[in-house]
Amino acid sequence: MADEPLARWRASIDNIDAALVALLAERFKVTREVGRWKAAEGIEAVDTGRERRQVERLRALATEAGLDPDFLERFLRIIIDEVVAHHRALRGEDFETPPSPL
Amino acid sequence: MADEPLARWRASIDNIDAALVALLAERFKVTREVGRWKAAEGIEAVDTGRERRQVERLRALATEAGLDPDFLERFLRIIIDEVVAHHRALRGEDFETPPSPL
Repeated sequence: MADEPLARWRASIDNIDAALVALLAERFKVTREVGRWKAAEGIEAVDTGRERRQVERLRALATEAGLDPDFLERFLRIIIDEVVAHHRALRGEDFETPPSPL
Repeated sequence: MADEPLARWRASIDNIDAALVALLAERFKVTREVGRWKAAEGIEAVDTGRERRQVERLRALATEAGLDPDFLERFLRIIIDEVVAHHRALRGEDFETPPSPL
């Protein structure tokens, strides 16, 4: 089977992807707590200082792990954008919008 | 300390992010093997059937884990785009382009 190594690598990729999904789900569980707390305390959804520190830290971790830091920053950006959208939806819930489906 | 719960949640988020970086590094180690193998065998970098199956599988896993499947698909897309760029750079190395810095 010429494709045998490919099938083995793909099985590893699929395992890693399932782990990534599980970790992301866990991460959003935590950020949902943050969002509820921020909404209750009337705190802004976005904290630019925190975001800057996260980006710097993860760029450094990426470089150490052999990943392109620009790629990692794009990756983090879509996560943060999603988190901020959730936080804003939670703040909206205190007034007139329906609960977020997330 | 009013910020104490926030500090605890952020410590969890930072741990999860470090795990995400480590998993992504591992994933790219595997896809680099795939890229080298594809380049050696003269196989196309992009496999649209495989990509479609990955997207479908991960959307289902995301839904099961309580994640927005559209978000997960955006997330997977930036990973796949990066992998394809690596694969193409590896194919180019066999001819005239300089080695990818990755």
